Amino acid sequence: MNVPSPINPPLRMLLGPGPSDVHPRVRAALALPTVGHLDPYYLRIMNELQQMLRQVFRTENSMTLAISGTGSAGMEATVVNLIEPGDAMLVCVNGVFGGRMADVAVRCGANVTRVERPWGEVFTTDDIKQALAKSKPKVVGIVMAETSTGAWQPIEEISRIVHEAGALLLVDAVTALGGVPVEVDAWQIDAIYSGTQKCLGCPPGLAPVSFSSQAMEAIGRRRTKVQSWYLDVSLLASYWGQERVYHHTAPINMTYALHEALRLVLEEGLDACFARHHRNHLALKAGLAAIGIDFAAQEGHQLPMLNAVTIPPGVDDKAVRKSLLERFGIEIGGGLGAYSGKVWRIGLMGHSSREANVLAVVAAIEQLLGEAGGTAATGVGVASVCQSLSSQIA
Amino acid sequence: MNVPSPINPPLRMLLGPGPSDVHPRVRAALALPTVGHLDPYYLRIMNELQQMLRQVFRTENSMTLAISGTGSAGMEATVVNLIEPGDAMLVCVNGVFGGRMADVAVRCGANVTRVERPWGEVFTTDDIKQALAKSKPKVVGIVMAETSTGAWQPIEEISRIVHEAGALLLVDAVTALGGVPVEVDAWQIDAIYSGTQKCLGCPPGLAPVSFSSQAMEAIGRRRTKVQSWYLDVSLLASYWGQERVYHHTAPINMTYALHEALRLVLEEGLDACFARHHRNHLALKAGLAAIGIDFAAQEGHQLPMLNAVTIPPGVDDKAVRKSLLERFGIEIGGGLGAYSGKVWRIGLMGHSSREANVLAVVAAIEQLLGEAGGTAATGVGVASVCQSLSSQIA
Repeated sequence: MNVPSPINPPLRMLLGPGPSDVHPRVRAALALPTVGHLDPYYLRIMNELQQMLRQVFRTENSMTLAISGTGSAGMEATVVNLIEPGDAMLVCVNGVFGGRMADVAVRCGANVTRVERPWGEVFTTDDIKQALAKSKPKVVGIVMAETSTGAWQPIEEISRIVHEAGALLLVDAVTALGGVPVEVDAWQIDAIYSGTQKCLGCPPGLAPVSFSSQAMEAIGRRRTKVQSWYLDVSLLASYWGQERVYHHTAPINMTYALHEALRLVLEEGLDACFARHHRNHLALKAGLAAIGIDFAAQEGHQLPMLNAVTIPPGVDDKAVRKSLLERFGIEIGGGLGAYSGKVWRIGLMGHSSREANVLAVVAAIEQLLGEAGGTAATGVGVASVCQSLSSQIA
Repeated sequence: MNVPSPINPPLRMLLGPGPSDVHPRVRAALALPTVGHLDPYYLRIMNELQQMLRQVFRTENSMTLAISGTGSAGMEATVVNLIEPGDAMLVCVNGVFGGRMADVAVRCGANVTRVERPWGEVFTTDDIKQALAKSKPKVVGIVMAETSTGAWQPIEEISRIVHEAGALLLVDAVTALGGVPVEVDAWQIDAIYSGTQKCLGCPPGLAPVSFSSQAMEAIGRRRTKVQSWYLDVSLLASYWGQERVYHHTAPINMTYALHEALRLVLEEGLDACFARHHRNHLALKAGLAAIGIDFAAQEGHQLPMLNAVTIPPGVDDKAVRKSLLERFGIEIGGGLGAYSGKVWRIGLMGHSSREANVLAVVAAIEQLLGEAGGTAATGVGVASVCQSLSSQIA
């Protein structure tokens, strides 16, 4: 037998588009002894998890639970349950994840209409009104925090016109949840999904979702079976609800981890958590501005937890990211799709959103750009302070 | 904010149909620091995981990987990739999981033909020959270790006639893998899936799968997109293969755990691992026979890791299982479907397959049946030995 060495991961500062750093309390919860998926203790943990997810989603929706897959499984779960073959769906595309939602909807047999905006911009109600009138969709899908561009999409006004047109609103909150306000009930969101590995600060592996009663009624009126057995929310409801009918074996230890991650968020308080994400975003923005690095997303609509910034001209994208990782143990993300090679994505999510991390990443970037003879090293950033300090000591 | 108490699970001996007990080394791996899903270190771990999965599946299949969901997601992954709407599929149904596979296939638009055998029995080539000739399927699906009945299905001869009929063979090895020999290449299995929480001794959350080159060629000839974006093996291949194209954020820490669980299996050696499962099964069978408890599955086809036994007449199923859990911390499984209230399912899987566990569960069952005035307490089982020993000491 050919047996590799035990896992011995390098220590990273995870400032990419997720996963983010995992709090030691969450890692400790992950390693607690496994119990059965029908053990009375586990059923209690499921109830507590739902109750905490409702607080974080700001909803009373009964059908609020964690899908046994990553954020993209949450996307698929919401789409496959709402869409039957031939249904019209309008998808707002201004980055990778809107495009992915359109792809998922096509695979469900939806007649998909795409409304597009350039990468980095957000949608206005005017953009969507015309398409609503024309395509008369059953469902409108939109990404609240577009992880590929760092654009922060307002939802409330769009929800109003979507409902006026008689459609259901489906929102991608993978990166948003826990980092900026997400008001499922107040904004009348009908279906929403997130991931655990962004602002909730838990390893990847589960996808929190919530369905409004209007969404559940629409699902109840389906003429066809949901195309995915694994993600069929009516079957999941029988396991998460009072009946406790076995569906699939739940990911017990991942549930422990998400339970602890949600406890951390609620202990801090949602508003304090949002304020922390906002504060560290402003600090990062100031630090990057000092070394001449600009943001890619539309001004006034920049996400606090996902900072997409323009790579200065002449700078070698991959070389800088490689050095950040190898010399400083700092992970940041490269650009996807249209932003490939043009943008860095600096995540300040969950437990990664800390002042010390902001200082470290700005200083490290300044250092590397200076070494490369780039345009960015101005000597006014935190790095110069750190360097002069370390030279005094040396 | 309403914040529940931290996770503090009771200590269980997990002798149900899975999850099984998790080795401390696996729990420790689970809690190691998270790295990014495109970190060079994580990519190395993915390669090592694939290389170990190939050893456990006994295959050279390049397309051998872990799906980011539980065993049922593995079932869905194999079916959705092989089946296009209108394809004929033959599904062998002799328990819950064959029935589930037929349901999944129908949701993919397959024309499903079911071949049935009574619960607890296995299929012979004769059962399948006629159906093959009649339905001319593209794919034949069969469950190797039917977790609902404890029946152990031979695969090799059936594979021969399936391939003679020009079909692909899809095998459910959720409970089989790591407990009994599974020879993917020697038996020419075209697609196979398993779960982590049975004989691999890892918490639930990932589904090892493998596709033969014939299966991948059939997938390459599809005229339609795979209906699931999340489970599309062509997209997954670009992430797991040389290109490392981002698909979804992998469940990093669950991958650590599976890596360590596979290391444990390979350190022990597959043959030694199968022998241990067999030995403990025989010990359990002898112990249960001594207290008058029979097996439900067909003689000669009883699984070593999933022991489905007939509940003695007059015994209260739920009361016994509740007492086992509450007084002794031992979880065993109840019956599903046709076996509900009639059968207990005693799992001896992975790290749970230990001699001490066999002694404990037989003694505890004897004790409870004796207290209930049941027919089973004969005083010849291990429980009487334990009891007389403890009374001597007292």
